[in-house]
Amino acid sequence: MEKLAIAVDMMGSDKGPGMALEAVRSFHEKNPGVLLYLVGRKEELGDVSSLGELVEAPDVLPMTAGALDVIRAKGSSIYKASSLVREGKCSAVVSAGGTGAFLSSAALILGKAEGVLRPALAASLPNFRTGGHTILLDCGASNENSGEELMQFALMGALYQRIVYGVDKPKVALLSNGAEEGKGSPEGKEAYRLLKENPKEEYEFIGNVEGKDVLEGPMEVLVTDGYSGNVLMKGVEGAAKAMGHLLKKAFMTNISTKLGYLLAKKGMAGLKESLDPSSIGGAMLLGVKGVAVKAHGASDPKGFLSALSLASRMAKGDMAAELARLLS
Amino acid sequence: MEKLAIAVDMMGSDKGPGMALEAVRSFHEKNPGVLLYLVGRKEELGDVSSLGELVEAPDVLPMTAGALDVIRAKGSSIYKASSLVREGKCSAVVSAGGTGAFLSSAALILGKAEGVLRPALAASLPNFRTGGHTILLDCGASNENSGEELMQFALMGALYQRIVYGVDKPKVALLSNGAEEGKGSPEGKEAYRLLKENPKEEYEFIGNVEGKDVLEGPMEVLVTDGYSGNVLMKGVEGAAKAMGHLLKKAFMTNISTKLGYLLAKKGMAGLKESLDPSSIGGAMLLGVKGVAVKAHGASDPKGFLSALSLASRMAKGDMAAELARLLS
Repeated sequence: MEKLAIAVDMMGSDKGPGMALEAVRSFHEKNPGVLLYLVGRKEELGDVSSLGELVEAPDVLPMTAGALDVIRAKGSSIYKASSLVREGKCSAVVSAGGTGAFLSSAALILGKAEGVLRPALAASLPNFRTGGHTILLDCGASNENSGEELMQFALMGALYQRIVYGVDKPKVALLSNGAEEGKGSPEGKEAYRLLKENPKEEYEFIGNVEGKDVLEGPMEVLVTDGYSGNVLMKGVEGAAKAMGHLLKKAFMTNISTKLGYLLAKKGMAGLKESLDPSSIGGAMLLGVKGVAVKAHGASDPKGFLSALSLASRMAKGDMAAELARLLS
Repeated sequence: MEKLAIAVDMMGSDKGPGMALEAVRSFHEKNPGVLLYLVGRKEELGDVSSLGELVEAPDVLPMTAGALDVIRAKGSSIYKASSLVREGKCSAVVSAGGTGAFLSSAALILGKAEGVLRPALAASLPNFRTGGHTILLDCGASNENSGEELMQFALMGALYQRIVYGVDKPKVALLSNGAEEGKGSPEGKEAYRLLKENPKEEYEFIGNVEGKDVLEGPMEVLVTDGYSGNVLMKGVEGAAKAMGHLLKKAFMTNISTKLGYLLAKKGMAGLKESLDPSSIGGAMLLGVKGVAVKAHGASDPKGFLSALSLASRMAKGDMAAELARLLS
């Protein structure tokens, strides 16, 4: 087997390449067999020869960059990193840059995989009912999706579950505004029909779930259009953050609650861990030629490190080939 | 001024009329000047003459009832209660029944208010940044909404803020998948343009916000289409519930965390209160002829009581007349 190679956009973070360097160092220690291409400004990265191969990229895109910026700045780190995948030098690209630049470069440079109607951005959320994860997709690669696209998302999400978490025949649900059949947008209803009438080896379709089921539902894959998926993912993220703030305030109420915090600290650490987006690693664009992972925007080294691990697991699983086989 | 009258669907809850009776008793004690019409089965309600006027309704609709069931069962408590508003006997109707039956009876029996394109279901969420509330609408009366409908929602939400919370010129934001102008669905973009180009006395339009801003954003009214609003509201509800479960587990980790809980209990009570849907009272259907409030499905007497208070405040504010004036 060929040596696995990953292209790392070192310049994506607002805070400079320090975070990415720290994550790359940890990853390299644990995975010395994986070849890393480190893409960025030489003067900022310094000597990285002990970690991987430096690929110079003079330009850095701002977090707000869109498709046009990506095309214009061919010397940007995200453009160059994605190009390494396109050229076949790497199987995966990882970036902590803005979502717009990430999605645009993956779409424009990697391109859609064989048979895929639309790529989907997939996030892995904790599922506190199963103790595992729920793959939520699409989280915002598109605004709207047809029923057929949604049906493909079910398959892509199922492969993600199998490759990354080893779940063999995951339960797939459709997000809707009611649990009963017949609820949802016209596209959602069409997807329901398609999923029901075309059972697959790769997953079990279990029907509709609602927004309230997102962290404790019976599903392992949650399929929705990109707009609603984005709203739901960010809503949950915002709610978790707000709870965190409230919890802090609750503990600061008086001397007794403060003491309570000190005693309960151990349990709270586990709670924080469960809700920490950096423990999940990032969103992955499924349905493109190669593996593309976006580390969480506010990622610390831990988040970037888990994005690297996710990319490496996904690349080893060769999802693209499997997807092409199933869609052909 | 005429005496304010409210029609109460006593049979909406799965758990029988006990909860509604308890809430009505508390409400009546605090608001002896408000006339209550208690709609339901005489044999289950018993003697309610000390609380208000009994209106017999032999049928009870199940929580899953839809529009057709409402039309077929004209003897149902929700049908009869809504009819009291239509006939002008009451200014408001309150029910803890299923959302489907509630929306159908409000739409079919009360009908749209003058000039309103589409009614919207409005929920009041806590806003931990402002310390006040955010009116989220539409939460699911429709599936899709045009730009013009969304613009009307801004006005309806602003009137809600003014009447119920006394906020004079609330900040209105559009929910989108990105904070920048130009993000969102085609309808959302159209609404952005309309809101920007038609400034109003009643509110200040502040642009787009994302799902993550739902509990801590800069807005006092959050406008979105019914499908996304439903997904967001339920997502936040589900996330809050999941956090509650996690928090409980965190405190149960060991003897030290358990002791910590006892010490921090006072602070935690405030936290629970903040996230408790029953303290909010319920969702209101705006844009119909009269006031229609749905108590939270799993409402305890406290939730039902605050739904009654909400209905009474709203009826006193005479939103329908104000809305008609502004839309004409």
